Amino acid sequence: MKNFITFMFVLFLGFTSSAQNETINVADFGIKPGKDVTLELYQLIDSLEGKKNITLFFPKGQYEFYPENAFEVYRAVTNHDNSLKKIAFPIFNFDGFTLDGNGSTFMFHGKIVPITVEGSRNTTLKNFTIDWEKSFVNELTVTENNKEEKSFTVDVANEKFGFEVKNNQILFNHYDWQDEIGQNMAFDPATRSPIWQTKNYYLKPQSHKTAKIVKIDYKTAKFIDYTKSLPPVGTVFATYGNSPGANRFAPGIHLSNSKDNVLNNITVLAAGGMALIAERCENISLDTFIVTSRDDRTISTRADATHFLGCKGTIKLENCLLEHMLDDGINVHGAYVKVEKYLGNSTFLCETSHVQQWGFIFGEKGDELMLMSRETILPIFKTKIKEVKVLNERRMLITVAEVPAKMPEGKLSLENLTWYPDVYMNKNIIRENRARGALITTKGKVIIENNYFSSQMHGILIEGDNNKWYESGGVEDVVIRNNTFNTIGYGNGESYPLLAAPLFTEDQRIGDDKFHRNIDFSNNIIKSFNGHLVDAFSVKGLKVTGNIIELTNDYPTGSTLPAIHLDFCEDVIIEKNQFKNFNFPIKIEVKENVNSIKIKRNKGVK
Amino acid sequence: MKNFITFMFVLFLGFTSSAQNETINVADFGIKPGKDVTLELYQLIDSLEGKKNITLFFPKGQYEFYPENAFEVYRAVTNHDNSLKKIAFPIFNFDGFTLDGNGSTFMFHGKIVPITVEGSRNTTLKNFTIDWEKSFVNELTVTENNKEEKSFTVDVANEKFGFEVKNNQILFNHYDWQDEIGQNMAFDPATRSPIWQTKNYYLKPQSHKTAKIVKIDYKTAKFIDYTKSLPPVGTVFATYGNSPGANRFAPGIHLSNSKDNVLNNITVLAAGGMALIAERCENISLDTFIVTSRDDRTISTRADATHFLGCKGTIKLENCLLEHMLDDGINVHGAYVKVEKYLGNSTFLCETSHVQQWGFIFGEKGDELMLMSRETILPIFKTKIKEVKVLNERRMLITVAEVPAKMPEGKLSLENLTWYPDVYMNKNIIRENRARGALITTKGKVIIENNYFSSQMHGILIEGDNNKWYESGGVEDVVIRNNTFNTIGYGNGESYPLLAAPLFTEDQRIGDDKFHRNIDFSNNIIKSFNGHLVDAFSVKGLKVTGNIIELTNDYPTGSTLPAIHLDFCEDVIIEKNQFKNFNFPIKIEVKENVNSIKIKRNKGVK
Repeated sequence: MKNFITFMFVLFLGFTSSAQNETINVADFGIKPGKDVTLELYQLIDSLEGKKNITLFFPKGQYEFYPENAFEVYRAVTNHDNSLKKIAFPIFNFDGFTLDGNGSTFMFHGKIVPITVEGSRNTTLKNFTIDWEKSFVNELTVTENNKEEKSFTVDVANEKFGFEVKNNQILFNHYDWQDEIGQNMAFDPATRSPIWQTKNYYLKPQSHKTAKIVKIDYKTAKFIDYTKSLPPVGTVFATYGNSPGANRFAPGIHLSNSKDNVLNNITVLAAGGMALIAERCENISLDTFIVTSRDDRTISTRADATHFLGCKGTIKLENCLLEHMLDDGINVHGAYVKVEKYLGNSTFLCETSHVQQWGFIFGEKGDELMLMSRETILPIFKTKIKEVKVLNERRMLITVAEVPAKMPEGKLSLENLTWYPDVYMNKNIIRENRARGALITTKGKVIIENNYFSSQMHGILIEGDNNKWYESGGVEDVVIRNNTFNTIGYGNGESYPLLAAPLFTEDQRIGDDKFHRNIDFSNNIIKSFNGHLVDAFSVKGLKVTGNIIELTNDYPTGSTLPAIHLDFCEDVIIEKNQFKNFNFPIKIEVKENVNSIKIKRNKGVK
Repeated sequence: MKNFITFMFVLFLGFTSSAQNETINVADFGIKPGKDVTLELYQLIDSLEGKKNITLFFPKGQYEFYPENAFEVYRAVTNHDNSLKKIAFPIFNFDGFTLDGNGSTFMFHGKIVPITVEGSRNTTLKNFTIDWEKSFVNELTVTENNKEEKSFTVDVANEKFGFEVKNNQILFNHYDWQDEIGQNMAFDPATRSPIWQTKNYYLKPQSHKTAKIVKIDYKTAKFIDYTKSLPPVGTVFATYGNSPGANRFAPGIHLSNSKDNVLNNITVLAAGGMALIAERCENISLDTFIVTSRDDRTISTRADATHFLGCKGTIKLENCLLEHMLDDGINVHGAYVKVEKYLGNSTFLCETSHVQQWGFIFGEKGDELMLMSRETILPIFKTKIKEVKVLNERRMLITVAEVPAKMPEGKLSLENLTWYPDVYMNKNIIRENRARGALITTKGKVIIENNYFSSQMHGILIEGDNNKWYESGGVEDVVIRNNTFNTIGYGNGESYPLLAAPLFTEDQRIGDDKFHRNIDFSNNIIKSFNGHLVDAFSVKGLKVTGNIIELTNDYPTGSTLPAIHLDFCEDVIIEKNQFKNFNFPIKIEVKENVNSIKIKRNKGVK
């Protein structure tokens, strides 16, 4: 922890060095509220090339941004659709660039990325709200339902754009495209969260013959035989299209290849992807970063609130509110790449597995690598990158300093050991979203304290997969303390406040060693309808102590699953946890393959 | 003409300067017939970076190229779909690079561009054939038809890929995608050309209720109520999909920003776009460049055989055979960009109009520009580019040296006067293709002699539009002599061996001056079923002399249109043309707005 604090100190010292700021009032360059300022802003930013310690100051107001005259460049944006991106604030290769919105709203129209920070140092973004005239998510509110007809009527939140029904399909009009229904999810207006057992309300024709969509008027449509269960009046459907390039087009903010990034007092009300995606950045600090929905909407962003791939230094989140997004609150991880073939001469032909990671920078010269088994997901041999030759977005040649005397048989992958960050999360609220609260898989030091989590799936997921997304890796030092977990897993009651387990495919298997290490889950308060606490697999060094778990009645109570479930773990302490008020059995299930376990002084366990 | 010959001499002198070639036998680098050599070839080319006067020599054989390990980069390719392009031969920034296939076949699989020459000088490509395992064009041969059922049965040329029928749609399997029917055209096996009145056989459901496609077996399908007229047995349908990124993905050869390019003895049997597309190149010489279909196919390329946008120096085609492609034989033109808005400070906000020109380089610093009226398409003011700032693929800011004292009212466009080539075409055969033989709109000197044309639409089209494609511009010196035009316009009998006319939109109008100048169409032999010779609009200086037009009976004879039609022309000579054997009236129609016209000593005219 001492190193951690020292590091943070050095970090903040670095941030104050940009003291001789030149401040530019954008109004002096024709950038004024109430009109499209995209071209003027680009011309201004372009004219600042090479300048240091610049602050762009926006007099408070609402500024409009349209795609027509926006700067554009082809971008691979991890976890988004790679494509030509129009960018309103292209902050490329700056040192000491500050964007101060002074409480302004930046209002976007159509397919445009608000802010991209690329190849920069000491960037500060602060005091503004990002919103879209028309959200990328289409919302439908149920106003009537009819059991006999198996139908329900919806208000389409179309704002001025409208919709049409064609060939028995509903098409939502957007700035210059239409979305079909695509993926979708039902939300409960009472909780502003995904509705309990939301999958029963998935919008999909239930029968080829009777399923039908009828346009009633400009804002009303009727769905017949479209859901397994009839949605209650008030239900809000969130749908987003599958159109290529529009499915996850636009993050709110993209940080890439940049060092020392500070984001303060920013609100993101909508985005066509994540609110914030960061890749290959060193040091990112978020304070009062808010992702929420606008008053007239239920949903905020199309995907995660925040996501960090292959970063290093420290990622710090404090005082953030992340809610109403259609995916996780925060996800911090490294990456594996598949070894397609060993070509000899210390060179591996490697492949990035998931299409939405294609084009990301896996590693560069000098990065430490671990050669891994793709069967056990365990490390085999440590080496260093000598050269990376990118062939295409999917494949690359990686030449390393040293290889094992005999190349191991079986499927292999590579893990980048250099680009793992420390994580510090304090006083954040993550709630009312689809999916998980936090996914944390980094080899760095992790402290998660004083936060509030309430998520549809797991509260905190410590996973690592060598499978689909190839998100690495095994953790080494995670402390989760003094947090509140409220009604975790209100999707279907099967999730846990903490799940720590690598994700195995059918042809992957347990090896000789554990995947995760040193996870301390202590002194948290859990308000729970099912008593679930921790599910752990392949963890060495797991401490679950001093947690208080109290029954709530917000969702159907009870569970068929154990409160604590341990599989292939080692050095485990389960101590002084109190289960309060549960009127059903609270079980701890320990598989025979668990070694060195202490379970003592827990209350309320059967 | 003297300048022209001098220039050619200088050009060829330049070509011989790469005399101290180093020749590399690719076999020494593991590049051998019968296997995927994409990665090995890329590694070899990559290792040659910075070297001059290199010859890559391929021992004769068939080499395979697949997309998986190919070099990839985002490319705007004019007249094609812009996208990430995998490229087998990325010849980037070389000086004196020679690719000598020694008679080899380069066989491509899937979405991959065979050859891209970018930013290079003195490049020679020779002695190879480009082919694809599976053509981008889907061919269907009619084996039976049934009038009562309004049906016909087809053999699907599926090679090993096959097809499926799903939701009453036929889907042709390709390397890693499926094509729906999309655009299509029927060919006549007797002529190997588009069938007479091909639009009657357009594949489109004729009735929502009865139209049907049935899969009979792995290579047979039946179409019911799908064409206006029932296609004769033997008819070959060519169809190509609409899938984004696959519609015009891959040209055979892309020349871009390169000087002194020689292409000799190359055969292109298939391509997912044009066989050759060149943009912003200086000097391109083609000798024995052959575009044709493979013996087991009817169609060669998905689009034009050759196309040149915004080139300069000389474009020379000799001894070429261009046939069976689904678009024009050759198209040489410059480009206009629309002026969206004059921003003051000598800066225009400009827009590239057609989506398949987005991203092309319209002009660079130092290029001469003409400010044009977009209403009359006539020149207004000549100036020079001081700076171009590209905003995005569609829009740019162009700052010029001088603007008119008073900016003219009305819609404007800009024409690049610097990037216009001379054209020399000699002894080429262009035939049996959809669309036109040659489109030539360049301000350079043009000589077209001793060629054979036989096209579905116009033989030679001298157009220029400020409308859809924004292909400039008015010609100044064109000589078309001693060519043979055979059964021109076998699409529907409405086309001409020569049409010279700008294309006007409804809101464009004749101005004070003519658009084209100095076109000499002399001593050509025309074998014609309708007697059509020349249609000209807005041409000053038109000479049509010594042409012999003979009747053929290959298609239905006769015409409702005049043999010669003149509208808004000036300084016209129609002299000593002989119409032979026509058994229907041959008319010359001259509008009242034509000035200074001599019509004399023509034979066979009524």
